[in-house]
Amino acid sequence: MSGSDGELAAIETIRRGLPEPPAGETWIGDDAAVVAPPAGKRLLLAADAVVEGVHFDLDLVDAADVGWKALAVNVSDIAAMGGRPLHALVMVVGAGADMIEGLVRGLAEAAAAYECAVVGGDLSSGPALVVSVAITGTAGDREAVLRSNARPGDALFVTGPLGSSAAGLRILRSRKNREATGPAGLAPMAGRSPDALVSAYRRPIARVSEGRAAVASGATAMIDVSDGLGIDLDRLATASGVGVLLDAVPIAEGATREEALAGGEDYELVFAAPNPGEVAEAFGARGLRRPICIGACVSDPAMRLLGDELLEAAGYEHRLGWARLRASP
Amino acid sequence: MSGSDGELAAIETIRRGLPEPPAGETWIGDDAAVVAPPAGKRLLLAADAVVEGVHFDLDLVDAADVGWKALAVNVSDIAAMGGRPLHALVMVVGAGADMIEGLVRGLAEAAAAYECAVVGGDLSSGPALVVSVAITGTAGDREAVLRSNARPGDALFVTGPLGSSAAGLRILRSRKNREATGPAGLAPMAGRSPDALVSAYRRPIARVSEGRAAVASGATAMIDVSDGLGIDLDRLATASGVGVLLDAVPIAEGATREEALAGGEDYELVFAAPNPGEVAEAFGARGLRRPICIGACVSDPAMRLLGDELLEAAGYEHRLGWARLRASP
Repeated sequence: MSGSDGELAAIETIRRGLPEPPAGETWIGDDAAVVAPPAGKRLLLAADAVVEGVHFDLDLVDAADVGWKALAVNVSDIAAMGGRPLHALVMVVGAGADMIEGLVRGLAEAAAAYECAVVGGDLSSGPALVVSVAITGTAGDREAVLRSNARPGDALFVTGPLGSSAAGLRILRSRKNREATGPAGLAPMAGRSPDALVSAYRRPIARVSEGRAAVASGATAMIDVSDGLGIDLDRLATASGVGVLLDAVPIAEGATREEALAGGEDYELVFAAPNPGEVAEAFGARGLRRPICIGACVSDPAMRLLGDELLEAAGYEHRLGWARLRASP
Repeated sequence: MSGSDGELAAIETIRRGLPEPPAGETWIGDDAAVVAPPAGKRLLLAADAVVEGVHFDLDLVDAADVGWKALAVNVSDIAAMGGRPLHALVMVVGAGADMIEGLVRGLAEAAAAYECAVVGGDLSSGPALVVSVAITGTAGDREAVLRSNARPGDALFVTGPLGSSAAGLRILRSRKNREATGPAGLAPMAGRSPDALVSAYRRPIARVSEGRAAVASGATAMIDVSDGLGIDLDRLATASGVGVLLDAVPIAEGATREEALAGGEDYELVFAAPNPGEVAEAFGARGLRRPICIGACVSDPAMRLLGDELLEAAGYEHRLGWARLRASP
């Protein structure tokens, strides 16, 4: 595209699809957005890009799913600090004119769901669809929860069963193959509704309220399960200098054990906290599902055990953020 | 790449190439960076991506130039609000292992030059090099200068002559062609050193001090010349509801008139201010080159004149940011 009617139409679609700023703020429409700084102690900043052919396949998801996911995975990074999101900036590269409306719809839905304003961004042509999002957030008057302060003896919790997203991707791929090969390959599905698993993959949920509850319950370290429990828990343990000894891992209905351990993209939160009673109380008081205790931190920093087996630091490794990897030496 | 030694080596290169945070802050190494919020009235947020084959050609510039430019164009967006940059988040897609070190070097050089900390980011594979940067900034205790408050009668200034960047690109392309065709095509260059023009293209300078001086001198509206004077001034005029009547445009030595008017990527600032004496004084007091008065804002909102000719809203239009375009109806 070259400054064409199509490009102008795209911008008009974006403008119409997103809300207007409150008085005193300037969002989309100037060189930079002008917003109120957070009142809290600290500003949280995170960024994550999703790339066609790497993080999503447009044969399996639509543009609105990509828009949702691009924002939700960033919100999850803020949730994993015990914060809440404030503002997002969205850079879209290589979106065809037919994709813009869907992308903006997905972004706007996630922005509304997480009360996170899309305040600016950039639109460029390019050889593949890349949606890069940067996000601000605040932990209010509390300190943000790093991944590096877990202590031996802390219990380890996860905010929900794992593997739904990977199972959803498996179902989508299998449906696509069936379309290609015809109905002869159909087989009945057992367990949880396939649509719920597909939805977990297409529209992941960032656990903002759960992150806040974890802070309130004395969490010492926290991370979101983006790349797989094995790899993400290894990052938390390595950053904290503790070992981990897991009793069991909760597997989502319809998912396999491997999907739960290494599938990634579940965006449940894993956190360490010294007092299980306070955890149950803080989540209960907020009407949230009680987190599942999966094990404990131990003093041997090299230990990575699930029952008697080695907990492998395996996961969705072609999506490796700077932040995530920095924690592993 | 797939979670390989190469990927880990890339992260280690990034870690080594960037400075460590001050006490009490967490930068690269967690789900989100934790930084001090700006003390000023407002938080400024901007984002811009540079894309291989769209904004740069790796036959003409190197990875360090791309790193510098990706950060500098974002700093320029903050400068155009009269602010100074604080933090940057960098998302790199599709960088080969051989590019990471250069990219990080260019980023680190720009980060040091503009006192803007790279606090986090993300690294992914992908089909082409895309460097997406998001930036925060502050205007301190002053209000940010929007592009929408110019008034009829305000004088229009530009912080330097234009066209250097486009001339530099022309020289780089011509050198590349000569390499292909042999020395027979050589012709002597007149005017400014070609290397200075090439440098203006490869390592553009964001005018942070000039933006601060413009604020101090009573600027009513400001924009950076990223896409071309014609198109960027049209955006300022349209957002402000004023017309523009230019006397002349300062052309950089060695550049053509068309390069000055429509070349873009000069990142000089254009601003409107009611009092030329205050402008001269504010810039002089800071030891900055005095801005060049190029004309005035007029009450007819449709007027776009350069002398007797129509000032065309032409420029580098395949790089159209949301923010930039939103100002044009």
